Amino acid sequence: MGGDKAPGMVVDGAAAALERHQQVRFLFVGDEARLKPLIEQHPGLATASALRHTTEVVTNDAKPSVALRSGRQSSMRLAINAVHEGAADAVVSAGNTGALMAMAKFVLKTAPGIDRPAIASVFPTARGETVVLDLGANVECDAANLVQFAVMGDAFARAVLGIEKPSIGLLNVGSEDQKGHEELRQAAAILRENKLKLDFHGFVEGSDIPGGAVDVVVTDGFTGNIALKTAEGTARLYTRVLRDAFASSWRGKLGYLLARKGIETVRKRFDPRRYNGAILVGLNGIAIKSHGSTDGKGFANAINQAVNMLTSGYAGRIQDELQRLGTLAEATPEPAPATPTPEPRTAAG
Amino acid sequence: MGGDKAPGMVVDGAAAALERHQQVRFLFVGDEARLKPLIEQHPGLATASALRHTTEVVTNDAKPSVALRSGRQSSMRLAINAVHEGAADAVVSAGNTGALMAMAKFVLKTAPGIDRPAIASVFPTARGETVVLDLGANVECDAANLVQFAVMGDAFARAVLGIEKPSIGLLNVGSEDQKGHEELRQAAAILRENKLKLDFHGFVEGSDIPGGAVDVVVTDGFTGNIALKTAEGTARLYTRVLRDAFASSWRGKLGYLLARKGIETVRKRFDPRRYNGAILVGLNGIAIKSHGSTDGKGFANAINQAVNMLTSGYAGRIQDELQRLGTLAEATPEPAPATPTPEPRTAAG
Repeated sequence: MGGDKAPGMVVDGAAAALERHQQVRFLFVGDEARLKPLIEQHPGLATASALRHTTEVVTNDAKPSVALRSGRQSSMRLAINAVHEGAADAVVSAGNTGALMAMAKFVLKTAPGIDRPAIASVFPTARGETVVLDLGANVECDAANLVQFAVMGDAFARAVLGIEKPSIGLLNVGSEDQKGHEELRQAAAILRENKLKLDFHGFVEGSDIPGGAVDVVVTDGFTGNIALKTAEGTARLYTRVLRDAFASSWRGKLGYLLARKGIETVRKRFDPRRYNGAILVGLNGIAIKSHGSTDGKGFANAINQAVNMLTSGYAGRIQDELQRLGTLAEATPEPAPATPTPEPRTAAG
Repeated sequence: MGGDKAPGMVVDGAAAALERHQQVRFLFVGDEARLKPLIEQHPGLATASALRHTTEVVTNDAKPSVALRSGRQSSMRLAINAVHEGAADAVVSAGNTGALMAMAKFVLKTAPGIDRPAIASVFPTARGETVVLDLGANVECDAANLVQFAVMGDAFARAVLGIEKPSIGLLNVGSEDQKGHEELRQAAAILRENKLKLDFHGFVEGSDIPGGAVDVVVTDGFTGNIALKTAEGTARLYTRVLRDAFASSWRGKLGYLLARKGIETVRKRFDPRRYNGAILVGLNGIAIKSHGSTDGKGFANAINQAVNMLTSGYAGRIQDELQRLGTLAEATPEPAPATPTPEPRTAAG
């Protein structure tokens, strides 16, 4: 039920994903009265779907702690529960990011060696693709959190992108050692000691994300979120200005017609919908966060992320990697204090 | 002497700026043996130029406090001194940003009501142009600093962009009130009280910078720097991928030839060199920071920024505005503690 155009775009997305992956089965969680007619509009979707009815929803402005306490019958919570129970293999939501993270963390628990899960996604770059994390789960991060994100990013790049020895950069305002926040310098010192056997490249700058200087860019959730949205917005603006330029003269229009194939490839490469579906890494279970503002096409890509992770055995690999690296991470000089998980007043279910 | 391709690109930039603005006179500060032959390569430049010789330079990896203490005969310091003495109207440097800010602050002093100067620049947006600050002068900022940046951004947008009542947004990970760091929420509370008579729009996200949601985006120097470099890098990547797409087939090549005029306009609109020349706002004097990696064309634009500010009377307007608003800013509920200026061991000169 989450997202600006929900639940319509969620159902549209499922229908589009079903065309691509006919083996997928959907468990819709939400208001039956609204969902059922939408599902029935798509031939074949109803037979591939089940429905868990609830009228409760987590609103976009709900604080994560409040959602966790009072949203135990919400569509988001029941969808996460379904993964925990084994009734679903993954949860995909376009709802409140903070609430999704808090609930997923509470229900699915964090993977061994990880204090805080992070949100990871893939950016288009000059060299291919780069994983960036955290994209918004943790607004404030200490050095130990950043080191754990490096561990998770490494595991993600190996498992999902198939890179044998991913290079890792810490996002900063310059590549010199003395730049940036204290926690960044501490994290860099830990990563340089290399007890974790990661390929640590050092500090990278904002331009190194699209530049593809490293395979994994590690940052706190505040900075990562700003970088992601600035990059997406810039690509959107560029596409728009380019379209206007082609439309402004007959020569432009004719040029567009001739070069259309190439231009469309470029536009698609930078379409945020193509990269929709951020992964909540560091949990015992697969949870995918879709952009709230996406459409059915974008939501289908978020579902696709989940399907890829499952069908290619990525999920198991990530968990193994995290466990292996997580054990090593426990040996870092400055382990983070355990992050207190907000406790609901009674047991969930 | 600062910048990757200095001093050649500085001299090239001055020559290009002189073609555009024949009334400008240059005071080159640096190594005479290197500068003189370069200046003489450009007809007319020598007669429009003077030179202050020094062999000392501030290196790019020098800490600002060290540069301030030991760089009193550096080209950067002598150029700033020239503004203070009235021998120059503005200083333009492509050198070490931190050192430039520290020295400019020490020599020129901050404007009334301002604790910390900031770096401001103009971004291309869907609606035209938006001022963003701080872009890297202050890695850590408290609420009072952010409020002062809003005041300076307002003054800049009125004076330089000629916007009558600039709308102001605080950069955050979401537009909801409870999002982001504590200092952001405090700054928003102060701006909402509206004692400063600013048009405060509330929180904006990364995508709102290229989207042009507001005229002024206020953020700390760490986040602003990441946003700027990510946006520039994304535009550069887009331009490159587009060029490859046109070059990949004969239809693409022909299409490019036909639509070239429009495509070139787009490329230029996103060319970081066009926006080169960030302004150090909040100082008693004009100081412009050029990208270190720019070329002569980009450096000419940085000089152009200084010329525009001077010839259009912008400088005086900004100072008036800052003074008026600075007086109001002193009445904000939570004034910042005075930022300690690093003191050189003896008086400067």
